[in-house]
Amino acid sequence: MIVTVVTVYVKEEFRDEFINATVENHNHSIKEEGNLRFDVLQSMDNPGRFTLYEAYSSSEASKKHKETAHYLKWRDTVAPWMDKPREGIAHRVIAPLDKETWK
Amino acid sequence: MIVTVVTVYVKEEFRDEFINATVENHNHSIKEEGNLRFDVLQSMDNPGRFTLYEAYSSSEASKKHKETAHYLKWRDTVAPWMDKPREGIAHRVIAPLDKETWK
Repeated sequence: MIVTVVTVYVKEEFRDEFINATVENHNHSIKEEGNLRFDVLQSMDNPGRFTLYEAYSSSEASKKHKETAHYLKWRDTVAPWMDKPREGIAHRVIAPLDKETWK
Repeated sequence: MIVTVVTVYVKEEFRDEFINATVENHNHSIKEEGNLRFDVLQSMDNPGRFTLYEAYSSSEASKKHKETAHYLKWRDTVAPWMDKPREGIAHRVIAPLDKETWK
């Protein structure tokens, strides 16, 4: 399993559009083979800060996400709305390790 | 629902102890009322960087976690092992909103 935690800072005037585009990306991503979670979160203290929590069953499945039409559309659509470049951190899972929890 | 994403940097010589203490905290935390997830992750590029993904059904349940014996034990145990103060960011959930996915 691999989990990429992405932090995105969005300009105030584009927050609603960002949420719409990211929910669309979420709706497609959760249908990908190997996708376990694709959570979209917004910071309570700083509503311009978003976290995407992208869990896949393998690094291959995670890489394939970046080749999908919906990812490429999302990436190009939201790029001009960002306050600074987004940061993605890839992780291995320490706990929980049972795959049932990740479904 | 509320998700707190905690970033922890751990000194190299204490990584194994940190993992053990955090898995113990995980094992207790997932049994708390209102806990939805308590994922423990380690950065692939920087094995001294850890992410805790703590999802609760309400902010009350999230607050109660910080009053539990296992949280307080973890906090005091790992504090001297950290390279810098940990950062916790509280989030609201944008997607998915169906509670079944979070179980």
